[in-house]
Amino acid sequence: MSNFTIIKNGGVTTPSGFSASGITAGLKKSGNKDMALIFSEVPANAAGAFTTSLFPAAPVVLAKDTLKTNNKFQAVIINSGIANACTGKQGLKDAEKMAELTASELKIEPEEVFVSSTGRIGTHLPMDIITNGIELAVKHLSTDGGSDAAAAIMTTDTTPKEVCVSLNLNGNTVHIGGIAKGAGMIAPSMKVPHATMLSYITTDADIESTLLSSLLQNAVSGSFNRVTVDGDMSTNDTVIIMANGKAGNTTLTAESPEISKFTEALDYVMQYLAKAIVYDAEGATKFVTVQVKNAKFAKDAELCADAISNSLLCKTAWFGGDPNWGRVLAAAGYSGASFNPAKVDLFYNDKPVVIHGEDAGTEEAELEEVLKNKEFTLTLDLNDGDCSYRMWTNDITYEYVKINAEYHT
Amino acid sequence: MSNFTIIKNGGVTTPSGFSASGITAGLKKSGNKDMALIFSEVPANAAGAFTTSLFPAAPVVLAKDTLKTNNKFQAVIINSGIANACTGKQGLKDAEKMAELTASELKIEPEEVFVSSTGRIGTHLPMDIITNGIELAVKHLSTDGGSDAAAAIMTTDTTPKEVCVSLNLNGNTVHIGGIAKGAGMIAPSMKVPHATMLSYITTDADIESTLLSSLLQNAVSGSFNRVTVDGDMSTNDTVIIMANGKAGNTTLTAESPEISKFTEALDYVMQYLAKAIVYDAEGATKFVTVQVKNAKFAKDAELCADAISNSLLCKTAWFGGDPNWGRVLAAAGYSGASFNPAKVDLFYNDKPVVIHGEDAGTEEAELEEVLKNKEFTLTLDLNDGDCSYRMWTNDITYEYVKINAEYHT
Repeated sequence: MSNFTIIKNGGVTTPSGFSASGITAGLKKSGNKDMALIFSEVPANAAGAFTTSLFPAAPVVLAKDTLKTNNKFQAVIINSGIANACTGKQGLKDAEKMAELTASELKIEPEEVFVSSTGRIGTHLPMDIITNGIELAVKHLSTDGGSDAAAAIMTTDTTPKEVCVSLNLNGNTVHIGGIAKGAGMIAPSMKVPHATMLSYITTDADIESTLLSSLLQNAVSGSFNRVTVDGDMSTNDTVIIMANGKAGNTTLTAESPEISKFTEALDYVMQYLAKAIVYDAEGATKFVTVQVKNAKFAKDAELCADAISNSLLCKTAWFGGDPNWGRVLAAAGYSGASFNPAKVDLFYNDKPVVIHGEDAGTEEAELEEVLKNKEFTLTLDLNDGDCSYRMWTNDITYEYVKINAEYHT
Repeated sequence: MSNFTIIKNGGVTTPSGFSASGITAGLKKSGNKDMALIFSEVPANAAGAFTTSLFPAAPVVLAKDTLKTNNKFQAVIINSGIANACTGKQGLKDAEKMAELTASELKIEPEEVFVSSTGRIGTHLPMDIITNGIELAVKHLSTDGGSDAAAAIMTTDTTPKEVCVSLNLNGNTVHIGGIAKGAGMIAPSMKVPHATMLSYITTDADIESTLLSSLLQNAVSGSFNRVTVDGDMSTNDTVIIMANGKAGNTTLTAESPEISKFTEALDYVMQYLAKAIVYDAEGATKFVTVQVKNAKFAKDAELCADAISNSLLCKTAWFGGDPNWGRVLAAAGYSGASFNPAKVDLFYNDKPVVIHGEDAGTEEAELEEVLKNKEFTLTLDLNDGDCSYRMWTNDITYEYVKINAEYHT
């Protein structure tokens, strides 16, 4: 039994003291919502995890820079449609201007504002539209605004992604809410700290700043860094958490016994959002859990899981419902992982596919049945140690090609 | 001007002393040719380069093992349709049996026979069909049989791939011929020695054995290891060269001044075949040369070229004719290469796309014109040193997904 409760229809504004909005500024041809604002009525401890790309977008550069000297934040302003990436000095000025405008409207300091952008790379932000959008976003701030914010950060997503849980910490009810966006250009970055899409987590827990940062990093490596849609890491990947302490609990520190409860709830929230991204993967029809077990070293398990999850041949076979296990073993074989091929077992759900590196003899029809499911688990057992790694991924379909061949924003 | 002449319609049987055949044994439902034999009437110096997969197919294991104690070969027997990979001890026995049967029919020793297989992984070879096929292949050996062999090794290929050149070495005419197959599961292995599909090179040059081996490795790293279709390396990748000395030239050694001429011709043959694989890439509509220039270290150029060539987002954008350069920079950014993003220039053919990490201001329509070509070159200039790396790749299309979702052999 878990130590937390899922709050139906909850999101980033369910935790006390948070409001949010999602509005149409006019950045998208579709006229869909394109700017979001999340606001904490009091300064919140904050931490972030960001893309490790050598071309980080301007807002990522700004956020990382601001976090060097400040970890108290009150707002996140986000636009979708334009990524403000590969936009040079002007791009950085535009990101700074977004922080200033938001701060000015909210009567706070620019250093207390996170800026995020997502969308087309290489295009400058139309700052007149952004300026109006910020005014509008502040005007529409509401304690019911979480869903609007979730909708406004979408690009090729087909559904907004939000979640909230509550838990009891020594008599105080604490909430953790989150939203995320992402459906393509999704891959783990393989480095720490790292992140792989946009996600914003709010909590009314009172939690010490350094601890918050390390809990975020741990949660990211078990959630957003475990999903891959197409192996392409973005220039804008960002996960931000703000903890405003409005729940009134005794401040959580590295020594608090309640940390495990909080961690469990935070992991749930972030894994829920990470999985939601894979469920919504561009054009995908399958959700596949790739579990690699009993590797000698953690790195070997990770390399195998990563190669299988990103193999185009595996991903198209899953789409075709083809139990072609040769492609799975081939991917493990070229992954760079070290293991003994003669010891390897492979299972599709509970059906043995390969035993000791050879065909297990299960009827093809039985394996095809497994692959007909919308979700299945592929378990590669290296029988060589006790290290494991798990990834969530999806198939690659005609629709994926269509979306990405035709996505001229 | 090059030092060699391309021989129209030439192939592996153009060099003196080689015969070949390609026949239908009955391994493919289609009834297409499925077994090939290449035979040298005298023992030939031989060398090979093979997949670095941890799951090498049985014939790869056998060939590498035989090459440890012997480098004089007279024959290569190849079947398509079944890969004899992940087939355990029985698979190895079957590969050995193929060598024995071929040797017996040809009245040579099993250690003088290379065995290759390509096709579905995890299935055992039907040895009765193989046995009849070997008999038939020997019966059909002909000095005009090169094209039949090229056809018989195809799986998802749409065209056979063969080439031959001649060159003059101190008054003697020497030939280098080759065939190859491959249209998917194609990626460089990133290790040396390595190879990435099936290719067989014959030459009537007299060339010293150790030299032959090192020339092959060099030629592989500039040809087959520079192409990627889908990033999936196969369990069966094999390149074999046989040099039978029938041209009567003075034996080429490491000290011969003619080596550069021979190398130039061999490089041409292998690059021709490697490019032919990309031209025939499953469902591809574009041939893209990815050229990374002026990296500080060779590894940085290679990492960038590899990430761009394998990026699903780049490959689908090329299919869509979308000049989306953000995806190219994003791929370079996550490649793991080290460079200064503010120094980076990007060109599509000769059109500047990015200068110093930002939009070069070239009209979108001009860039779209470049991408309308069946072939174009993308040049990423890191302006950070003098190391280069070049890859040949292709777009990913609906047809690729179709072929690989529906390829149930």
